[in-house]
Amino acid sequence: QETNSPSFGKGLFDLVGKDSTWSMNVSARMQFLTLATWDNGPDNGWINPEQSFLIRRSRLKFNGFAYSPKLKYKIEFGLSNRDMSGASQFTGNAPRYILDAVVMWNFYGNFEFWMGQTKLPGNIERVISSGNLQQVDRSLLNRRFNIDRDLGIQLRHHFYLSNDFLIREKLAVSMGEGRNVVTGNLGGYQHTARLELLPFGKFKNGGDYKAVDLNREETPKLLLAVTFDNNQDAVKTRSNLGSYMANDIGFYQTDINTIFVDAMFKYNGFSFMGEYANRTADDPIAKNSDGTLTGDEVQVGSGLNLQSGYLFKNNLEISGRFTNIHLDEDITGKNPENQYTLGLSKYIVGHKLKVQTDVSYLSIDGGTDELMGRLQVEVHF
Amino acid sequence: QETNSPSFGKGLFDLVGKDSTWSMNVSARMQFLTLATWDNGPDNGWINPEQSFLIRRSRLKFNGFAYSPKLKYKIEFGLSNRDMSGASQFTGNAPRYILDAVVMWNFYGNFEFWMGQTKLPGNIERVISSGNLQQVDRSLLNRRFNIDRDLGIQLRHHFYLSNDFLIREKLAVSMGEGRNVVTGNLGGYQHTARLELLPFGKFKNGGDYKAVDLNREETPKLLLAVTFDNNQDAVKTRSNLGSYMANDIGFYQTDINTIFVDAMFKYNGFSFMGEYANRTADDPIAKNSDGTLTGDEVQVGSGLNLQSGYLFKNNLEISGRFTNIHLDEDITGKNPENQYTLGLSKYIVGHKLKVQTDVSYLSIDGGTDELMGRLQVEVHF
Amino acid sequence: QETNSPSFGKGLFDLVGKDSTWSMNVSARMQFLTLATWDNGPDNGWINPEQSFLIRRSRLKFNGFAYSPKLKYKIEFGLSNRDMSGASQFTGNAPRYILDAVVMWNFYGNFEFWMGQTKLPGNIERVISSGNLQQVDRSLLNRRFNIDRDLGIQLRHHFYLSNDFLIREKLAVSMGEGRNVVTGNLGGYQHTARLELLPFGKFKNGGDYKAVDLNREETPKLLLAVTFDNNQDAVKTRSNLGSYMANDIGFYQTDINTIFVDAMFKYNGFSFMGEYANRTADDPIAKNSDGTLTGDEVQVGSGLNLQSGYLFKNNLEISGRFTNIHLDEDITGKNPENQYTLGLSKYIVGHKLKVQTDVSYLSIDGGTDELMGRLQVEVHF
Repeated sequence: QETNSPSFGKGLFDLVGKDSTWSMNVSARMQFLTLATWDNGPDNGWINPEQSFLIRRSRLKFNGFAYSPKLKYKIEFGLSNRDMSGASQFTGNAPRYILDAVVMWNFYGNFEFWMGQTKLPGNIERVISSGNLQQVDRSLLNRRFNIDRDLGIQLRHHFYLSNDFLIREKLAVSMGEGRNVVTGNLGGYQHTARLELLPFGKFKNGGDYKAVDLNREETPKLLLAVTFDNNQDAVKTRSNLGSYMANDIGFYQTDINTIFVDAMFKYNGFSFMGEYANRTADDPIAKNSDGTLTGDEVQVGSGLNLQSGYLFKNNLEISGRFTNIHLDEDITGKNPENQYTLGLSKYIVGHKLKVQTDVSYLSIDGGTDELMGRLQVEVHF
Repeated sequence: QETNSPSFGKGLFDLVGKDSTWSMNVSARMQFLTLATWDNGPDNGWINPEQSFLIRRSRLKFNGFAYSPKLKYKIEFGLSNRDMSGASQFTGNAPRYILDAVVMWNFYGNFEFWMGQTKLPGNIERVISSGNLQQVDRSLLNRRFNIDRDLGIQLRHHFYLSNDFLIREKLAVSMGEGRNVVTGNLGGYQHTARLELLPFGKFKNGGDYKAVDLNREETPKLLLAVTFDNNQDAVKTRSNLGSYMANDIGFYQTDINTIFVDAMFKYNGFSFMGEYANRTADDPIAKNSDGTLTGDEVQVGSGLNLQSGYLFKNNLEISGRFTNIHLDEDITGKNPENQYTLGLSKYIVGHKLKVQTDVSYLSIDGGTDELMGRLQVEVHF
Repeated sequence: QETNSPSFGKGLFDLVGKDSTWSMNVSARMQFLTLATWDNGPDNGWINPEQSFLIRRSRLKFNGFAYSPKLKYKIEFGLSNRDMSGASQFTGNAPRYILDAVVMWNFYGNFEFWMGQTKLPGNIERVISSGNLQQVDRSLLNRRFNIDRDLGIQLRHHFYLSNDFLIREKLAVSMGEGRNVVTGNLGGYQHTARLELLPFGKFKNGGDYKAVDLNREETPKLLLAVTFDNNQDAVKTRSNLGSYMANDIGFYQTDINTIFVDAMFKYNGFSFMGEYANRTADDPIAKNSDGTLTGDEVQVGSGLNLQSGYLFKNNLEISGRFTNIHLDEDITGKNPENQYTLGLSKYIVGHKLKVQTDVSYLSIDGGTDELMGRLQVEVHF
């Protein structure tokens, strides 16, 4: 007894409840990663080789509508050890199995109200699914500055300024300590606002939030966006990420602000993504109640990420990336870093079955340079 | 390729194996909870506000029969961090992912033999699924006294005393340390016996084990029940729940007895549930081998929970709850508590899609009173 | 709306993607185990009884092909606490949820390339699924010597020497520290080579890798195999299993070699399985950088396991097993052990629904003998 399912990459099931009372698309994906790194030795040779083989991501996704097409939901679970890691007393000492669990209610016109745990409207690179990236993984800018997922509510709206000119507004209020927290809200709330301008209209097939111009846009398409994020009385070193800044009376609290400016451009197989990030804090140096230092500090500073790729007719893509990270050296004690990445990807079935490889050179001011090679296979049902 | 599925709330799949050799209903549900609490300050104002947003429960359920309709099974997984928490050396330092995993064999007449991990036949409030509650969550009586799930076997039987008068008997023998234990049996076994009287016949649609009179019983329906539970040489402070009573030679062991008397009544949209619980122990104060105290004690005492609700024609329900907890103050050092809860629920698709809110006032003798407001959305496919 | 599914034991779903672009068989299984042990007292009586009831295994399995029938995959998750246990800093402090996650590419002729996490081509008893065993669980030889699962790549090939004589070659290169590791490769790689001879042709229905002659081979069938395994600079006491041999400068490293010789024979309901294992190490005694001992040692030695069973017409089987374990006493300080097991199994629906019981007598030279009784029910959809 065989069950007919969607075509490859479109999900395992496309369920429709009796009388169209609900729907659910179930999909699954997996990433296999091989990684090798070398340090730059004193005589400019490459030393200290390290290798790793990893089930990088293993995910189950469910989305559709419940009861009314106006009430949508999205649920995503992470099953690999890398996906689930991060258990702490704040997560009930349980693995962080749930990635997304959010209901989205289109309560009026172009307005949507979201409730649950999902990605905040932060930098575009973060919001692009890890299954839809141009290179093996996201950039250092993302690793240092992104605002990830959180528990809370969002309000989303969009409208057209002219025939083509689309504007989207996204607002969020969340707990401010990241995903899967079960111990309540520490410090204050996190507030996020993002404005997106698409002057030449929508990208084909949601391409503004997918890397690579797999749709080969026939006319130039552009997204320009800015995100302001304020985490009031934040208790972690990277806003809602990083480590908790514990002190003698509980947690050191300070307001942390993060700004992102980003852009996505696609045309005829060519794509460009640019991001700038900046993080500041009221007082980035964590203190005890008597003013002595705890040793933690907010990771303040800025980053720039520029990447571009061209997709050949045979669905082979060559891509390049430059990332500059400049944390405040006086406060964080960390030197500026530049990373250069060259990527090669073969999209066998778009992002659903692909092989990607990239080579990265990391140059650290006054530190040890590092070379990294990666090879990844992605399978997405 | 769409797959036809049951209507909303009836499951994601209703699978039937070829030649009707097995069946499986697969369902999923999720609860989103917002919570705020305040303490009663010295001048009677409300101070110390705390808020929390939580994915309270996230569950996958599987049930049906295997090979023969007489061999049924039920499996339930908990995916949220709250569902899975409680990892310890006794659970292999792994999260407590499995809630239920039980096979039920109707081996003769009205007899069923159960084997696996599932809820013990304890107080009715506990056995009612958390998806079928009248208010946002269960009462304090349940939190202090319930006997939860355990690993073991059960024998169940029912018969009719007259045309209408249904009697059910439920017996269980289990390991006595709660769910997901992998390190074998400490102390002795737990024995549970429950007797249920339904003098006016079955409730519609299994309504005795679902809160709220959603079926609007046309004639009064009543369940009266009593549970006796003996946990021989128990090693935890609340029978098979609570903390382990470690001492110098392993674990302090004492017999713990728990008695529940409960009732459920429904008629024409009105529902009433009452519960009395009492816990005693042979020697509730944990000791080392030389008679010195370990600092743990069995949480002996009693509780009363009364709750009632009326469901209006528009499926809006107003409900009230009173709970009294009286632990033995000499032994446990805990003061009596009274909690008053007022609830409002909108059942959009019965218990399958509902919004519930409640306000609770907790009065602690000689302690700080507490106010709590909650809002919960439940979606059940 | 019912969905038609395969017959009992053949999976929950047999999915086929549109245009046959992919396939997936989804299956699930569960084992309920009851266990009792006794020690042999000074007067030859049985003392110190211990009992346990356990959800021994709870698994979800997915296999099929992706995009092309030449690209197959297998994924298996373990959901019970026993399945998932083993969290450590090396697994991201997350449970070891993934058992198998591997893609298998038939890139040319009879060659297959595997990538991901799966069982290494070690001793036959280990590679036989825990759902297809003859007795309640695997032998002591397996517990002491098996090389389990690992992350890496495999190359597999087979050919016929004559009409019937099938030969299979299996090669693997893997990280060498076992499954679900996320912290990269310690020490060197593990290399495994296995050669299998099937002089009388294939077993029916893959029976060489399933215990019990449920297919009642009409002609004698035999598999003879040998595995050589070299774990270069291994850091754990049992090659890629056991505990990490930490020392003052990180981890003690030594080459560990494991050899298996095994055989499977089946004919007309009769089955025999034999295994010999031998483990050596370059220098089995773990040391710090200054040559002082750390207290760890590689578990070097050898083992022999012989087991046989006969399946009666009514699918009742009686089986016997003898296992001898002889670790190097000077190095490991462990005495030789002999275990005798008598098993009785009823295969209601083959391995898919079965009840198994066995009694084991463990005799330890100069130690306390142990008696163990077990009863297990397996349900496999």
